[in-house]
Amino acid sequence: MKKHNFNAGPCVLPREAVESAIEAIRDFDNTGIGLLEISHRTPGWERIMAETEQLWRDLLNIPDDYAVMFLGGGASTQFFEVPANLLKKKAAYLQTGVWAKKAAKEAKFYGEVEIVASSEDKNYTYIPKGYKIPTDADYFHITTNNTIYGTEIHEDIDSPITLVADMSSDIMSRPVDVKKYGMIYGGAQKNVGPAGVTFVIIRKDLIGSSERPLQTMVNYATHYPEEARNHSMFNTPPVLPIFVMHETLKWVKAQGGVEAMYKINKKKAETLYNEIDRNSMFVGTAVKEDRSMMNVCFVMAPGHEDLEAEFMAFAKEKGMVGIKGHRSVGGFRASIYNACPQESVDALVACMQEFEKNHKK
Amino acid sequence: MKKHNFNAGPCVLPREAVESAIEAIRDFDNTGIGLLEISHRTPGWERIMAETEQLWRDLLNIPDDYAVMFLGGGASTQFFEVPANLLKKKAAYLQTGVWAKKAAKEAKFYGEVEIVASSEDKNYTYIPKGYKIPTDADYFHITTNNTIYGTEIHEDIDSPITLVADMSSDIMSRPVDVKKYGMIYGGAQKNVGPAGVTFVIIRKDLIGSSERPLQTMVNYATHYPEEARNHSMFNTPPVLPIFVMHETLKWVKAQGGVEAMYKINKKKAETLYNEIDRNSMFVGTAVKEDRSMMNVCFVMAPGHEDLEAEFMAFAKEKGMVGIKGHRSVGGFRASIYNACPQESVDALVACMQEFEKNHKK
Repeated sequence: MKKHNFNAGPCVLPREAVESAIEAIRDFDNTGIGLLEISHRTPGWERIMAETEQLWRDLLNIPDDYAVMFLGGGASTQFFEVPANLLKKKAAYLQTGVWAKKAAKEAKFYGEVEIVASSEDKNYTYIPKGYKIPTDADYFHITTNNTIYGTEIHEDIDSPITLVADMSSDIMSRPVDVKKYGMIYGGAQKNVGPAGVTFVIIRKDLIGSSERPLQTMVNYATHYPEEARNHSMFNTPPVLPIFVMHETLKWVKAQGGVEAMYKINKKKAETLYNEIDRNSMFVGTAVKEDRSMMNVCFVMAPGHEDLEAEFMAFAKEKGMVGIKGHRSVGGFRASIYNACPQESVDALVACMQEFEKNHKK
Repeated sequence: MKKHNFNAGPCVLPREAVESAIEAIRDFDNTGIGLLEISHRTPGWERIMAETEQLWRDLLNIPDDYAVMFLGGGASTQFFEVPANLLKKKAAYLQTGVWAKKAAKEAKFYGEVEIVASSEDKNYTYIPKGYKIPTDADYFHITTNNTIYGTEIHEDIDSPITLVADMSSDIMSRPVDVKKYGMIYGGAQKNVGPAGVTFVIIRKDLIGSSERPLQTMVNYATHYPEEARNHSMFNTPPVLPIFVMHETLKWVKAQGGVEAMYKINKKKAETLYNEIDRNSMFVGTAVKEDRSMMNVCFVMAPGHEDLEAEFMAFAKEKGMVGIKGHRSVGGFRASIYNACPQESVDALVACMQEFEKNHKK
């Protein structure tokens, strides 16, 4: 039976990227050596590193005065590396979920932290609005998409101070005006690859801007030296994850880039949200205007709560994978990242419709 | 033509591990979902995590009062995380190469550092002996194998203080008396997997022993909570690298464990060193008693220096890959890690013999 992968991350990847990875693991770049066994100092690999950086630049129109690097340790490691590198006295955070909260917690090791606004009062079902960004902070940190709650900041914010964004779960899903940000970072394992690599896009003048002595691996300057062939190669990079990122970005480009991805993603999200709003059995959990285009969260409608386990079993039987909601929200979550095809969304919608029909008999 | 992979790391892996990875990328654990696309919270993956930890415990006889964890960021990240977690006032380091030197440098962020002995005077061609380990230091740090220079500490040192070892390039190559160490760590990309995951074996009483406030990801306590299903799962782990580690360790076990690996490795090293010592064209660079069983470094013998490029081309033609020595040593380096078969060593030896014969004509 065909499976429809709605995992929240790691998640479905483009078939082309998966097939390329398998081919390369057998034989990388016609060297007779597999991708997992090559030296990261071979010209073939240095080309992949350079191309991956260039694909990021092309797809997001990243200006030349920004560095693009690939690190280990996940976005959680950036939670402390961001303030280590950027916080001088004070940082401002928008608290839109537990990941945003975790990020703010790490900043406290380095200085004062102001929580500008929080939606914790309503279990993060909305994005706070009308807050004031303090102009005396070194940066303002946001989490653009909140995987657990299915909320998203849909536009690039105008910030009077350096804007830092964790875009782990919506990077490459829509065009982004990089110039509005001082730094964008995230784990790759949603829209740009498998688990094991973190991307960091940062305006070059911010690198080395702190006077704090920094451990070599924590210092962004370590990972982006002048010589291009050494970008993200201070130590052995996570070769396979970066390779799959390279192939995933090539696929995004082949789809028509982020503008095309945005249209495709918008249609998928509309299909699913329309069904949730139409179907008498289900109800969405996030405030409509803040609904995520990536993670669609819904629960059984009032009066049908007792059917949750039944729908889960029914959907599983139809090949739906990974639609269980996070324990802090309950119900269901369908993650419909870039590589999730419209076909899978249609299959889930059909499943919801059939379930409703069965229960109206 | 068959290639013989002598890369210094990432390097040759067991064929079985590579084939398993490919199979799992197509379909993990009969789920219909590929390894790069599964959720790390599925039971199948939690089993792989638990089994990987258990394989480490079985193969190295790791006592119950030690934690085993898998992190991102490479051994270079451990260079600062070790002192962050363990250094209270002072640490002692044995300087046997640039990696050891880099490790000591990071410790200075956290306290006093004593370089107990160094072999920098002779370009790290030997392991210092007869040094005195200061009893007032919090730990003594060693690098058991020095990839660049081809030297190795062949026995488990008796240390009066906590012994910390970077075993990136010789872990699993021989039996190790783990009880003699407070901590053993390393990058996986030589003997235990591909690039992208770091192993940490640490006596549990050392976790949380520092009173220093530690960033969440830096604190070892974060990665080894009481509940086994959450070990190394605070954030998304590098799934593919850990899976290949799992398969590589299964292979080590199938070979007969580390005792068997030790015999196999010893024979490979003897084969190659015997040829270097016999062959009039080549000479080893490391002091004999400290020669590494993993990285065999040699240069052209005096009077034949001008033939270096010719031998490199000759060997390449015969299918030898990755035998160029590190720029700081020059000449040649054959890395003959666990997964390098005797057949490849024999092929290199045949190549050296043929080269000698050709030049005696």
